[in-house]
Amino acid sequence: MTSTLLTGIGELFTGRTDEAGRPTDAPGAETVLRDAALVLDGDRVAWLGPAAEAPAADLAVDLAGRAVLPGFVDSHSHLVFAGERSAEFAARMAGESYAAGGIRTTVAATRAASDEQLTAHVAALVAEMRAQGTTTLEIKSGYGLSVHDEARSLAVARQFTTETTFLGAHVVPAEHAEDPAGYVDLVTGPMLAAAAPHARWIDAFCERGAFDADQARAVLAAGAEVGLAGRLHANQLGPGPGVQLACELGLVAVDHCTYLDDADVDALRGSGTVATLLPGVEFSTRQPYPDARRLLDAGVRVALASDCNPGSCFTSSVPFCVALAVREMGMTPTEAVLAATAGGARALARDDVGVLEPGRRADLVVLEAPSHVHLAYRPGVPLVRRTWIGGRPL
Amino acid sequence: MTSTLLTGIGELFTGRTDEAGRPTDAPGAETVLRDAALVLDGDRVAWLGPAAEAPAADLAVDLAGRAVLPGFVDSHSHLVFAGERSAEFAARMAGESYAAGGIRTTVAATRAASDEQLTAHVAALVAEMRAQGTTTLEIKSGYGLSVHDEARSLAVARQFTTETTFLGAHVVPAEHAEDPAGYVDLVTGPMLAAAAPHARWIDAFCERGAFDADQARAVLAAGAEVGLAGRLHANQLGPGPGVQLACELGLVAVDHCTYLDDADVDALRGSGTVATLLPGVEFSTRQPYPDARRLLDAGVRVALASDCNPGSCFTSSVPFCVALAVREMGMTPTEAVLAATAGGARALARDDVGVLEPGRRADLVVLEAPSHVHLAYRPGVPLVRRTWIGGRPL
Ligand SMILES: [Zn+2]
Ligand SMILES: [Zn+2]
Repeated sequence: MTSTLLTGIGELFTGRTDEAGRPTDAPGAETVLRDAALVLDGDRVAWLGPAAEAPAADLAVDLAGRAVLPGFVDSHSHLVFAGERSAEFAARMAGESYAAGGIRTTVAATRAASDEQLTAHVAALVAEMRAQGTTTLEIKSGYGLSVHDEARSLAVARQFTTETTFLGAHVVPAEHAEDPAGYVDLVTGPMLAAAAPHARWIDAFCERGAFDADQARAVLAAGAEVGLAGRLHANQLGPGPGVQLACELGLVAVDHCTYLDDADVDALRGSGTVATLLPGVEFSTRQPYPDARRLLDAGVRVALASDCNPGSCFTSSVPFCVALAVREMGMTPTEAVLAATAGGARALARDDVGVLEPGRRADLVVLEAPSHVHLAYRPGVPLVRRTWIGGRPL
Repeated sequence: MTSTLLTGIGELFTGRTDEAGRPTDAPGAETVLRDAALVLDGDRVAWLGPAAEAPAADLAVDLAGRAVLPGFVDSHSHLVFAGERSAEFAARMAGESYAAGGIRTTVAATRAASDEQLTAHVAALVAEMRAQGTTTLEIKSGYGLSVHDEARSLAVARQFTTETTFLGAHVVPAEHAEDPAGYVDLVTGPMLAAAAPHARWIDAFCERGAFDADQARAVLAAGAEVGLAGRLHANQLGPGPGVQLACELGLVAVDHCTYLDDADVDALRGSGTVATLLPGVEFSTRQPYPDARRLLDAGVRVALASDCNPGSCFTSSVPFCVALAVREMGMTPTEAVLAATAGGARALARDDVGVLEPGRRADLVVLEAPSHVHLAYRPGVPLVRRTWIGGRPL
């Protein structure tokens, strides 16, 4: 194994926090270090601390004052699809209704695509994400919605990440429109059986017009029986039971959390469930943003993710989500970057990524900037100079 | 001279418009062409039209379905400065007042920097902009605010563009705080004399707390006497006389236009003055956005620019401004891209850039996307695959 010493770090954003997940200056646990160095050994972080005390290493790289962050952990994406929906987007922005079929358009295109086409498309999006600093990525199915197409969507996703999520309960597909209960039986039966070998997680879109709380509960219970851990899409389009259901079930994460009442916030506070916020969706649908400040002030754990998908949010950029979190959701730049690193890791129950400390994976981002604050101060600018994965620069 | 045929263009966004500056499908003047090809000859566009009719060329480049746009014309930036103000930005986002000196902080840092430091810093920002598709760029002085420092700021800027703007009337510097009239005399006298050899334009910040209408008028009149064309910063922070002054004087452009009353819109409509909108500022200061829809519906000519500067808006990304224009200002994606190309050219009185048609400069952008709509549909994603300047890819 080769060890590498990173010197000349303008700012080392460690991603460490206090017990409650808040930024800290506590000695030995500082969220942000200056005059620091970092030593990587193989695919792991071996050491970090004051540059003057850095141990020797096989190689040395001088970063000339640039900031170093943990790689982003994007805990929510829908990358397995074909086609695009830019005309629907433009119509929505113009305030026009759009006659085409929304998610069902993507389902039809996805079913019609070959495995090779789907794989090449995911590969292009994953490369785009990595260039923007994402080093750990969750990918959902949910545009196949048949036994065959959900299983192959997950098999494609599995080529790129271990964090694969079965989302057969995304919407009821057209051919089951008259029999949603029958579709839930399909999801919890043969579709789950075909999907499970390729998935770590199971998810449902618990929202008016999609699946209700009983249906979501049935989907998650069926997944749990075959060893899939649960997560939920909830409270995106309006108030609903999803957030409290997620907390009751002790899920690792519940995603969107745009419309929350006091009972929802209380439930999140009393649980270990991470609230994953996806502000690219609100940007791209012109909806109100979730109130991250309220959640943070209540002591709720928060993550930030892209939700990259062809309908409601086709950004792949975690830096853009950080800038939105600061502009629109009341997060400080430090809180936003924590949510996109350590927060994302927590939302995937991963203790090997999201924080730079000895023993964790050497997944990191070098910015063309002296501080993580520039991700919000310089919105839209591609500031990721280099992404390192497993101790190696891409 | 070498000629190059670009084929496989997924969409050719020409930047052509009707007489009123609106998108058009008129034969021979289509704003957007499909199945089109483009021929470059030396540094100029030689031909464009249906791919099936394309003439032969020395070289052929297959763009594999990607969209081609005119290079962005960023008609408003403040790149000549030293230092950064990310701490001030973070304090502003947190709703805190910030004790440090705002623009005066940057003035002090700029005066303290060497010519070489200033030049290297501008070079880095220009490279960043070019990578994001900007091919024509205006650069202002305004952080020197002494005879020596304004002149050298413009001399630095002139190394990168012919579109240099003398902005001695940016703010009254600390050493003249007790004598603003004396500072205007300095600006219109010895400072202008030193700056003029390096500048094409003269500008003033006509706003409560900066310069009033009479002062702005005096600055522009003095500039006109030595051959500098005028432009104005106006109506950014509140209502004011600047927009109507710009129209009365027949200026090429008036920039910001955030707070407009009916008389301002009427004045713009009756003038040839371009309203240049800078939505990155509103993003980074959490101010309300200008109402582009109102201006477009009134028949006013509109441009989009970055305003890249270390205080109110440190984005260099025209694609980000396009996405904001669609999300926040009621522009269609086509209108927003027109404003960032043909609109920017008009705001700089340039008839050789901003539109792809025979005889214009071969400055263009190849997107990693099939359509210009993706600049708004995929916010924050670095979609510029390649920038071409003067017929050559960077
Ligand atoms: Zn989702
Ligand atoms: Zn400005």
